[in-house]
Amino acid sequence: MAIIVQKYGGTSMADADCIKNVAQKVLRAKSAGKKVVVVVSAPAGMTDDLIRRAKQVTEKPTGRELDMILSTGEQISISLLAMAIQSMGEEAISFTSAQVGILTDGVHNKAKIEAINTSKILAELERDKVVVIAGFQGVTKDLEITTLGRGGSDTSAVALGVALEAEEVEIYTDVDGIYTADPRIVPNARKIDSISFDEMLEMAGAGAKVLHLRSVELAAKNNLPIHLRSSFTDTMGTYVVGEDTSMEKVFVRGVAHTTNNAKITIANLKHTSKNVAYLFHEIAEQHINVDVITQNYLTKDDVTISFTVTEEDFDRALALTKTLAEAIGAESVTGELGVAKVCVIGVGMKSTPGVAARVFECLANNDIEIDLISTSDINITCVINQSDYSKAVLAIHNEFDL
Amino acid sequence: MAIIVQKYGGTSMADADCIKNVAQKVLRAKSAGKKVVVVVSAPAGMTDDLIRRAKQVTEKPTGRELDMILSTGEQISISLLAMAIQSMGEEAISFTSAQVGILTDGVHNKAKIEAINTSKILAELERDKVVVIAGFQGVTKDLEITTLGRGGSDTSAVALGVALEAEEVEIYTDVDGIYTADPRIVPNARKIDSISFDEMLEMAGAGAKVLHLRSVELAAKNNLPIHLRSSFTDTMGTYVVGEDTSMEKVFVRGVAHTTNNAKITIANLKHTSKNVAYLFHEIAEQHINVDVITQNYLTKDDVTISFTVTEEDFDRALALTKTLAEAIGAESVTGELGVAKVCVIGVGMKSTPGVAARVFECLANNDIEIDLISTSDINITCVINQSDYSKAVLAIHNEFDL
Repeated sequence: MAIIVQKYGGTSMADADCIKNVAQKVLRAKSAGKKVVVVVSAPAGMTDDLIRRAKQVTEKPTGRELDMILSTGEQISISLLAMAIQSMGEEAISFTSAQVGILTDGVHNKAKIEAINTSKILAELERDKVVVIAGFQGVTKDLEITTLGRGGSDTSAVALGVALEAEEVEIYTDVDGIYTADPRIVPNARKIDSISFDEMLEMAGAGAKVLHLRSVELAAKNNLPIHLRSSFTDTMGTYVVGEDTSMEKVFVRGVAHTTNNAKITIANLKHTSKNVAYLFHEIAEQHINVDVITQNYLTKDDVTISFTVTEEDFDRALALTKTLAEAIGAESVTGELGVAKVCVIGVGMKSTPGVAARVFECLANNDIEIDLISTSDINITCVINQSDYSKAVLAIHNEFDL
Repeated sequence: MAIIVQKYGGTSMADADCIKNVAQKVLRAKSAGKKVVVVVSAPAGMTDDLIRRAKQVTEKPTGRELDMILSTGEQISISLLAMAIQSMGEEAISFTSAQVGILTDGVHNKAKIEAINTSKILAELERDKVVVIAGFQGVTKDLEITTLGRGGSDTSAVALGVALEAEEVEIYTDVDGIYTADPRIVPNARKIDSISFDEMLEMAGAGAKVLHLRSVELAAKNNLPIHLRSSFTDTMGTYVVGEDTSMEKVFVRGVAHTTNNAKITIANLKHTSKNVAYLFHEIAEQHINVDVITQNYLTKDDVTISFTVTEEDFDRALALTKTLAEAIGAESVTGELGVAKVCVIGVGMKSTPGVAARVFECLANNDIEIDLISTSDINITCVINQSDYSKAVLAIHNEFDL
């Protein structure tokens, strides 16, 4: 069977007209001879509304009961889409994740998919039905309802694609693909036709919020192509695929950025791995997400460590770091709000020397001070002053002729 | 275990304040030493909203997908109530009918409960938790989601009460009990403290819309007391129980009525059971609900048959009856809108002669013409002119000093 999985987000399910539009897209794929499995999110606004209802009852809803209420949003979407398809004269059937058997662990609000039972889905596809499945949710072996956390429906779609051995997963969203840079900053940013999983992971990690990291990781692991495209047009979007030879020619794929970061620096830390491990272990224990980490030698024995966190976590992170630094005998801790991160990403740079140098030169020529530098083999990250970020993104985009 | 089942309807779950009020009532029962199972309906207005969403997508939603969307309403209620109880420092856990295993047949939109798996509920009660269960819904052996139709949550509550061998089922609603007559018509109508299942069935069938017929039938069959009471006060309501000797003393329990009925009469029908059976079989085939049926002899061979239907069904029913009457050689068919039904109900009348005579005399003394009469051993039904119904209810209520 030539199976494709389509995933539609909340804005695509917002009202009856949107849902009918989705039904038409689904039927077009079916007419093209595909067996179609559709994964949907809750209608736009509904999840917020359900959370609001819960918060009116209690400030701190338990994870289990929050999953119980949140999972209704997707159940509403699946039934409405199945009805819309049926009203167009085609057969469709909706399933909750409990009905299909999308088995997860028992961690409420951020469960992980462990297994998917495909027998029911395959049987209905054999009967030539469109199968509509609730995204974002799962069920434990004890029939406890779980949800997968932010971006969960993308993950549901990719996990189903893997389990069903689909040809590809189409993720429909309100943008028409991945761009070489944020088009709001770089007017001549170009839609990328094809990007590798690794590049996509770096782009997603670096602030391109179109696809959720977990879903890309899962697709990469199973080499399942994702086609990211707009639910409002019929143009091709961006294919996220395994690396191929044609890709090597482009050594920089795009520039991503995040703003509103904060930076914390610990000076003159006695350099032992034990100290560094202790530091970041304690920070993680407080659920503070650390982004870029850099470490440099000051003397043979002392190092300086800098890392970035979100603005929201800054106060907590700074206070905690000061306490920790004292405990391990570091000299001083300083913090700074208003920093930005600019990431230059491309698998081609692995085999092209000098890309990093060109990035630094480009920034220097534009009078942009680089605060921190961190690189992987396909990602050059520079932490700079917040006020410089759009100049930096534009300059790099021009430098590499993206 | 001393288990009670409490059922709260949609108005009791309408908003956060209502839900907190319900949580307090639940905890009061728990403090009194009971193990409490709570059955809830969807928040008021939600079922209508979900139906509206469905109708915007398609005029004729399929039964399966309608059940899929409708069942989310109760799921929202159970999670919110569990949260409210938890926020008050007590343990609670919510379950959908699929999680518990409230097994039904596969008739969507009006499924019948076939079995209830009590192991999960009993285990949580043993752990001293309040168990909150979604009413109105069920699940088939194949995990298909079903709903029980109008009044379904009452039926869920009673079925759970039976399965759990509960002491009683408390049905909380927006009225504080069953009255000897409609208080809007009879200002001195009295709340009935205790009523037998049979009387309640007659009252419900005769227009007292407080408890759904199916739930009373189920309670009667299993001799499970129902306590019908208000969710807005703490006063005792009406106990619906098996007959006891004290009941015999009251020979008329109450007067119920329905208005806006229509009457159809077939004159000079050749009297064969075959003709009568044919007539009502064909009417039932068209899903026309017939209420009172009376038959009288005109001559040795000819009968007159009258029956009542709802106003909405009148045109269809009249046209159909004319066709049918012609086919079986009846002389004439006449129809009349604007009739009312007044029912005098009481198990005591079984052993008290002359109640019917007193009813007829009472109506005659008040210049009320009786059109049709139909009686069972605990119910005397008179079909009268619509304009007379409140006078009739008042007169009978006075006559029997209710």
